[in-house]
Amino acid sequence: MSKGRLEAFTDGVIAIIITIMVLELKVPQGNDFAALASSIPILLAYVLSFVNVGIYWVNHHHMLHATDRIDGKVLWANLFLLFWLSLVPFVIRWMDEAGFTSLPTAAYGVVLGMAAICYIMLQWAIVVCNGRSSRLAAALGNDMKGKASLAMYAVAIPLAFVSPWIAVVLYVAIALIWFVPDRRIEAILKQ
Amino acid sequence: MSKGRLEAFTDGVIAIIITIMVLELKVPQGNDFAALASSIPILLAYVLSFVNVGIYWVNHHHMLHATDRIDGKVLWANLFLLFWLSLVPFVIRWMDEAGFTSLPTAAYGVVLGMAAICYIMLQWAIVVCNGRSSRLAAALGNDMKGKASLAMYAVAIPLAFVSPWIAVVLYVAIALIWFVPDRRIEAILKQ
Amino acid sequence: MSKGRLEAFTDGVIAIIITIMVLELKVPQGNDFAALASSIPILLAYVLSFVNVGIYWVNHHHMLHATDRIDGKVLWANLFLLFWLSLVPFVIRWMDEAGFTSLPTAAYGVVLGMAAICYIMLQWAIVVCNGRSSRLAAALGNDMKGKASLAMYAVAIPLAFVSPWIAVVLYVAIALIWFVPDRRIEAILKQ
Amino acid sequence: MSKGRLEAFTDGVIAIIITIMVLELKVPQGNDFAALASSIPILLAYVLSFVNVGIYWVNHHHMLHATDRIDGKVLWANLFLLFWLSLVPFVIRWMDEAGFTSLPTAAYGVVLGMAAICYIMLQWAIVVCNGRSSRLAAALGNDMKGKASLAMYAVAIPLAFVSPWIAVVLYVAIALIWFVPDRRIEAILKQ
Repeated sequence: MSKGRLEAFTDGVIAIIITIMVLELKVPQGNDFAALASSIPILLAYVLSFVNVGIYWVNHHHMLHATDRIDGKVLWANLFLLFWLSLVPFVIRWMDEAGFTSLPTAAYGVVLGMAAICYIMLQWAIVVCNGRSSRLAAALGNDMKGKASLAMYAVAIPLAFVSPWIAVVLYVAIALIWFVPDRRIEAILKQ
Repeated sequence: MSKGRLEAFTDGVIAIIITIMVLELKVPQGNDFAALASSIPILLAYVLSFVNVGIYWVNHHHMLHATDRIDGKVLWANLFLLFWLSLVPFVIRWMDEAGFTSLPTAAYGVVLGMAAICYIMLQWAIVVCNGRSSRLAAALGNDMKGKASLAMYAVAIPLAFVSPWIAVVLYVAIALIWFVPDRRIEAILKQ
Repeated sequence: MSKGRLEAFTDGVIAIIITIMVLELKVPQGNDFAALASSIPILLAYVLSFVNVGIYWVNHHHMLHATDRIDGKVLWANLFLLFWLSLVPFVIRWMDEAGFTSLPTAAYGVVLGMAAICYIMLQWAIVVCNGRSSRLAAALGNDMKGKASLAMYAVAIPLAFVSPWIAVVLYVAIALIWFVPDRRIEAILKQ
Repeated sequence: MSKGRLEAFTDGVIAIIITIMVLELKVPQGNDFAALASSIPILLAYVLSFVNVGIYWVNHHHMLHATDRIDGKVLWANLFLLFWLSLVPFVIRWMDEAGFTSLPTAAYGVVLGMAAICYIMLQWAIVVCNGRSSRLAAALGNDMKGKASLAMYAVAIPLAFVSPWIAVVLYVAIALIWFVPDRRIEAILKQ
């Protein structure tokens, strides 16, 4: 089974998610700087979401590049990842309408945390399909970043009920950890 | 005529359908758990629709993989399938606005049932184009799953007027039957 | 310059147009058959638009298949075609809101007529780029269908101000003429 | 790392942006010519935006065609470009709602100017990755058009607060400068 169509479909879904988020945002209610200023928080939330979805695309790109074979389980693990990513525009719209309050902010973390779990499941499914001695298995190593970001989401979600801003700071920190493309895979591939 | 562009176009349309459904859902009207709870039914309807459309994508992927040739009739059978799948976001939005009442729930079954009929037509068109002795014709066999799910939709649609929940249970059952990718084709291809 | 990316981009835009039209339609205002019945006209307008855009995709598919080379002029002629096709969801939405009255119905014809003109321009640009003795030039012949449908749009648009339904009948007739994929090209390619 | 997936993803995002802009426009509020006339300005803004995004696609097409290699920095520079292009439908919607007043018109220039800066960054990233003696580096030369259009955006944005129409005239002028595909690259490639 060729990976070309899996890549194309994933690209399509991520392209739509990344583009459609901004479509959902309310434009400034007026034509002055005060109206624009009141749109700043949701625009920053858009930037964070764009970077997060962009990180998934770049890492997916790297991972599939190091993948030789896929099977039905990989297709479904990938669909589950896309399912949770497709909910990003939904939670961002909720935050836009309900404000940066505790529950929507926590929901944002749940959606991104579930996407992180699905990404790890997708890694597993690909490693199982390609064999534990494959290039990808070596490249992933102990997956510290994946485990660290899951732990940080687990901490951030309850903290959103203490203060949404603590959760937001943690979400930004996780994005920064991942911003650099997965050097492990690049390094192994170069050898 | 190459199948590459048919696959790419289908991937594009399905990627949009799967992503745009969630865009249509109303976000919770408030920032508390009560508001979130009242959004649960429509979110579950979204999960069911995502799985259904995902099943079509995975099976389409398998079927085209086993296809050597296409013609104009295959292009149009495929377009008809996409037409009915494109109505899934429409009926899900209707259910969101009108509630899980009889007619919208029945309409959901009609749309998925018509998609199932078009998928069978697409199978026929591909078999005719590739010959009755082709790999795909052998792989499809007597297509028990396809016939069973059509029969179940035919039963579920009128039962929606007795109780929408009976229909929903049947829709979930059909999705579960199909959730496993088409092993027939995988098995034949391995030989 | 390779035609692969032109095809992929066109597929993407047409996939979005075809999917997004239904997103724009208002769902039935109620959960009974009366509400559904009042949505029938706009659903039929959606069917007509889906078939029209589908025809462009199928013919574009055939034409590019017979094309060896493209250049910058072909890229822009193709973008102009996509521009007019992208207005189809806009006019269909206008018809949904303003009813099947004269001006929106005429505007629908203008948009499809302009798309037809751009398609002819695209044919010219491809023939110029590939040479008048190319396969495509031979396949197109005197392009009776293209000229006939342009003439019919020119007649239908003013008649929309007499009665929108005359225009609608003509639009349906044009779609039926084109429904069959371009046999001329298929025939030449088979030789 | 292959450039195929970068091209496909970019095509997907640009296809969505170009198609979705029109979806955001309000249809004429009525079914007479007066209603249509009051929609003319925003339709012209759509035409300008379509042409601008089309220019990016055509030039991106030419540039990637002359590119042999990409890396992680190119992926992110490309994502930044797509980020700013994704804001085009947002500002056009703001102009639709708030009218052609100073701040939305200036914001339109800021978004297109930032896209122009990101495009230059993308050129740099590709040149660094492929080497200063690569075909592309030679083809770009001193990039007069890129510098001129940046300067014109820098002038147009403050002038929008004097009169939005001066800014609009400058935006149209920049689009006209770029309308011709990048002959520099075509010329070098032909050698």
